[in-house]
Amino acid sequence: MNTEHEAASDVATLYWVGGTDGYLKMIDQTLLPTEYKEIECRDVETVWEAIKKLRVRGAPAIGIAAAYGVVVGLQTEAGTSRAEFDQRLKIVAEYLAGSRPTAVNLFWALDRLQKLAADSADLDSGEMHALLLEEARRIEVEDLEMCHKIGEVGAALLSPGDGVLTHCNAGGLATSGGGTALAVFFEAARQGKGIHVYADETRPLLQGARLTTWELMQRNVPVTLISDSMAGWVMKEGKIQAVVTGADRIAANGDSANKIGTYSVALLASLHDIPFYIAAPSSTFDLSLESGAEIPIEERQPEEITNGFGKQTAPEGVDVYNPAFDVTPAKFIRGIITERGLIQPVTTEQVLRVLNSEPVQS
Amino acid sequence: MNTEHEAASDVATLYWVGGTDGYLKMIDQTLLPTEYKEIECRDVETVWEAIKKLRVRGAPAIGIAAAYGVVVGLQTEAGTSRAEFDQRLKIVAEYLAGSRPTAVNLFWALDRLQKLAADSADLDSGEMHALLLEEARRIEVEDLEMCHKIGEVGAALLSPGDGVLTHCNAGGLATSGGGTALAVFFEAARQGKGIHVYADETRPLLQGARLTTWELMQRNVPVTLISDSMAGWVMKEGKIQAVVTGADRIAANGDSANKIGTYSVALLASLHDIPFYIAAPSSTFDLSLESGAEIPIEERQPEEITNGFGKQTAPEGVDVYNPAFDVTPAKFIRGIITERGLIQPVTTEQVLRVLNSEPVQS
Repeated sequence: MNTEHEAASDVATLYWVGGTDGYLKMIDQTLLPTEYKEIECRDVETVWEAIKKLRVRGAPAIGIAAAYGVVVGLQTEAGTSRAEFDQRLKIVAEYLAGSRPTAVNLFWALDRLQKLAADSADLDSGEMHALLLEEARRIEVEDLEMCHKIGEVGAALLSPGDGVLTHCNAGGLATSGGGTALAVFFEAARQGKGIHVYADETRPLLQGARLTTWELMQRNVPVTLISDSMAGWVMKEGKIQAVVTGADRIAANGDSANKIGTYSVALLASLHDIPFYIAAPSSTFDLSLESGAEIPIEERQPEEITNGFGKQTAPEGVDVYNPAFDVTPAKFIRGIITERGLIQPVTTEQVLRVLNSEPVQS
Repeated sequence: MNTEHEAASDVATLYWVGGTDGYLKMIDQTLLPTEYKEIECRDVETVWEAIKKLRVRGAPAIGIAAAYGVVVGLQTEAGTSRAEFDQRLKIVAEYLAGSRPTAVNLFWALDRLQKLAADSADLDSGEMHALLLEEARRIEVEDLEMCHKIGEVGAALLSPGDGVLTHCNAGGLATSGGGTALAVFFEAARQGKGIHVYADETRPLLQGARLTTWELMQRNVPVTLISDSMAGWVMKEGKIQAVVTGADRIAANGDSANKIGTYSVALLASLHDIPFYIAAPSSTFDLSLESGAEIPIEERQPEEITNGFGKQTAPEGVDVYNPAFDVTPAKFIRGIITERGLIQPVTTEQVLRVLNSEPVQS
């Protein structure tokens, strides 16, 4: 495993090397956890392919990759007129937008760069290119800060020696920084709290086994892998003092949609009097949804369950139910950790109060 | 898939064909669920190999296979003296006992046949051979009756149209009949109750995905496969009206050890006000254990989790916790279904009362 790259200790998911004539480097996540390989994106086609093939994944990371992809795609325009530059920008942005048509952060980042260009019509093509790189870096830095603040808010909730459980992967691989739930663990470990993480493997797609354990091992945070069916038993055995997971979408009342299995973990924690926390940026809230009942649950392919590990593990033609997410009611959530502070108790009133406040100061 | 064998509708795990010069047929369970193949055991070496390689598995089924194995092993002694016959019986029994040295039912069945031979010294070798076949058949029939009675006692607890959840495989493949938890479902379906079974896949070894779904599909009982992490969510969605699982060992107070994950399922059922039942023969009780705290939990190889099904799914060297069983406290068990009747409420007093009663009459 290559641990000699520039930011080895930080396990940088993706980062820019050099100036406007530089390139984007990223971990090829499709090879994890058995192989660690960084790829260099020196043309926009390589960035497009990396997003398309999930070499980079996770909403924030995709947005950052797309922003740097624009910078790479405009390297051919050195010394051209601003008109030619703008024409190429449009082509590059449209091209990148087609890599994963359902990824909201992808469009958000591309729009942000295009809007900046429209607002900066007085710059020549070289100046504009430099400003776009600066903006891409800003998107990355904002994401890093968000992760860092979530880490700080969450780490304060953990005590020295705590055993903590997490489900799925709310880690740095989906962001430029430490992720959300994992940012809490990274920060607690950095503060010397000596925590021990238990990671649910997270069937069907095994994000916990493949990614969460890998990220924690890379940063030397003690981690033990268990199967999802063991979560209740490790609580019963006294190994767990807190549970922290991420979230995909949170309603105004705090009901939280996250990877299937999160609901079970939250209920089991409740029965063992163990606090269950969600860690998520404020952008995860969808205040147009009054409660979790309005969150649609995506159902995925049966093959994820019947042919998950490289060979068929269930009878041909078996009926399968494969919801990708579940919704944990707010009453089972002790608190929601955001970059703007801790939402506790989890009520519509507290959600609105924290979301309307300023980000916490580091 | 071959569905033309003699007992297709019953999915006979193993059965004897013919008289004393006949042979033992069994499903090769190592090939399920992707291939259905019956093997014919016409010599004792083939029976030994089938037990050793887990082609036949489950305590009752192993005992029955060993008993028929003795009959096969003595076919070479036709017309010999009783002394020679007895000498060969000793050799065959010792040989079969070495196939799975930790299987209690294996020794139990072999001892039963040897004791019968010792008590029948007046018979000639041909008569003795016939009596041993009769005894092997009796062991099989007793097991069939046990499964049938458990099915009847349990089916009475289910209502028409119920959705029922099970974990792991407490099925006919471990017995000569309908198994324990699955016997309940088979009987309820036979009675026309129109139940629908949800089967947890049961990581790490996937007995639910591989065996439970297969058995239910063979008998045309509607079944849907889910991952273990979905159990809580299908309860929340109102799909489940009862949970029934098997047990590996039950203490005097009703605390029940079963496949890892059963504890979580029982607690989740409790939180959703869904009755959780154990189905197990009276031989599963170990009255020398006052409570489940005295039941040792076997910890198994990490590879079952990291390299489950043909490819590595976690980082090299990751720490793994892999308890094979957990213990569900009696207070979360609505009732224990045995061939002697239903134990309810689950207390030491009720356990002793039912175990000391006669088997229920069909």
